[in-house]
Amino acid sequence: MFSFSSMQFLSVGLPANKVPVRSLNMNPTRMSMKDPGNMAVVAAPKWAQKTITLPPHKRGCHLVTPKIVKEIEQDLSGFKCGLAHVFLHHTSASLTINENYDYDVRDDTETFLNRIVPEGPSAPWRHTIEGPDDMPAHIKSSMFGCALMIPITNGRLNMGTWQGIWLCEHRDYPTPRTVVVTLNGI
Amino acid sequence: MFSFSSMQFLSVGLPANKVPVRSLNMNPTRMSMKDPGNMAVVAAPKWAQKTITLPPHKRGCHLVTPKIVKEIEQDLSGFKCGLAHVFLHHTSASLTINENYDYDVRDDTETFLNRIVPEGPSAPWRHTIEGPDDMPAHIKSSMFGCALMIPITNGRLNMGTWQGIWLCEHRDYPTPRTVVVTLNGI
Amino acid sequence: MFSFSSMQFLSVGLPANKVPVRSLNMNPTRMSMKDPGNMAVVAAPKWAQKTITLPPHKRGCHLVTPKIVKEIEQDLSGFKCGLAHVFLHHTSASLTINENYDYDVRDDTETFLNRIVPEGPSAPWRHTIEGPDDMPAHIKSSMFGCALMIPITNGRLNMGTWQGIWLCEHRDYPTPRTVVVTLNGI
Repeated sequence: MFSFSSMQFLSVGLPANKVPVRSLNMNPTRMSMKDPGNMAVVAAPKWAQKTITLPPHKRGCHLVTPKIVKEIEQDLSGFKCGLAHVFLHHTSASLTINENYDYDVRDDTETFLNRIVPEGPSAPWRHTIEGPDDMPAHIKSSMFGCALMIPITNGRLNMGTWQGIWLCEHRDYPTPRTVVVTLNGI
Repeated sequence: MFSFSSMQFLSVGLPANKVPVRSLNMNPTRMSMKDPGNMAVVAAPKWAQKTITLPPHKRGCHLVTPKIVKEIEQDLSGFKCGLAHVFLHHTSASLTINENYDYDVRDDTETFLNRIVPEGPSAPWRHTIEGPDDMPAHIKSSMFGCALMIPITNGRLNMGTWQGIWLCEHRDYPTPRTVVVTLNGI
Repeated sequence: MFSFSSMQFLSVGLPANKVPVRSLNMNPTRMSMKDPGNMAVVAAPKWAQKTITLPPHKRGCHLVTPKIVKEIEQDLSGFKCGLAHVFLHHTSASLTINENYDYDVRDDTETFLNRIVPEGPSAPWRHTIEGPDDMPAHIKSSMFGCALMIPITNGRLNMGTWQGIWLCEHRDYPTPRTVVVTLNGI
């Protein structure tokens, strides 16, 4: 239905005066109806939100796509078109999208972060009360960011072949990390 | 209503054939109705957009959560579930989410940025017409980014306990900064 | 209609019990109606999604705002208020928003990235199978990110005067790059 090769958008709206109320299915994912006129689709915008706890990971970059998708795939399957927002509740870890195959890429990225952000006695940080790894962790968190937005297409996260979701743990001591996932679409 | 501890999503849609039109309240924030069956909520998707002018801040990282929330909290309170987008209209400052308590963390982050991005006569920049602090400011702006997306839950920004919104001013001369806030949800 | 100077939000919702069905226009972009009472606007939330292929660009930072806007402007014009999400399907390139006028800013940014991320025989990377420029490209991709979210106001991308969309190509060999654009709004 979403013809991406087409040079025309598939615009999706809710022209209330065309909604055949009786025929609408209670399942929002079935509430769509093609309109040959303007390619509009009658559908109910949906919102879903869930808080996920990721288990402790050791300092470094970790591929967590399967963990996150497993938590949301049932609801994700109900969205034909939309956006998935993944938000980390912490300031000493980060989320990023990067290569999903060779774990050396994750290790090399951790090597880069540790080279670029000074740590230990020679570091210039004033914020040291939480340990030598804390201030570097805050900086790395802002470098990569704590949030991702990923398109949803036909019930799945629409990422590139080699893209995956990374949780980057910047603290030495592994702790569970909280993530809020918000799905919005039709 | 949004049971985050639950392993089930709270899916939010508009099953039109279940809308008890007469009972719908004109206030969009009151247009939600729990459906015990599938936890669906009947609600009107809402959009709100506002341009905020942040006062001049000196070069460095500044916690601006209170300034931004004060500008939007009245409308924010009307969203049970949604997303808040904060977009900075400039290329020599940035927005990031980081630690909201110890100002040393902001100062150390500014120290890091100044160490990582060369500035002054020894810097290799060709773009120097706007002053020695301008090109470094552009680079820092792309390192941290100019936009944030934060989940909304029960009328509030759903950030972690220690998270706050930072405005990072990368220019020497403080100027007002324009931010466009867009709220979307139900 | 969207009075940004106003201290009040323009809240946009779908108060179903106030929709004058007969008068609603089939064109979603015409489905808005001001409500003096609460400044609410009756409108159909719309979603549109399109995959764009950007032509090969040489290693470096490139302004691609015109290329992207040309692909979406027809549909963009139908949104009075919303958000545009631009998502790159690759892990060795990035998208960022930065200065849209002086190409020296793009060249200086490329100079910075090459200084900050080691490349070649002296680099510490283990992931070298795809060439000396590949691992640095992955790191740069996470530094700037692969996604942008831009507010839509009155049918246009609401960016600052000097802001533009950059595609940063981090590989030596230019290849076409796939971008998924998702528009959502009213």
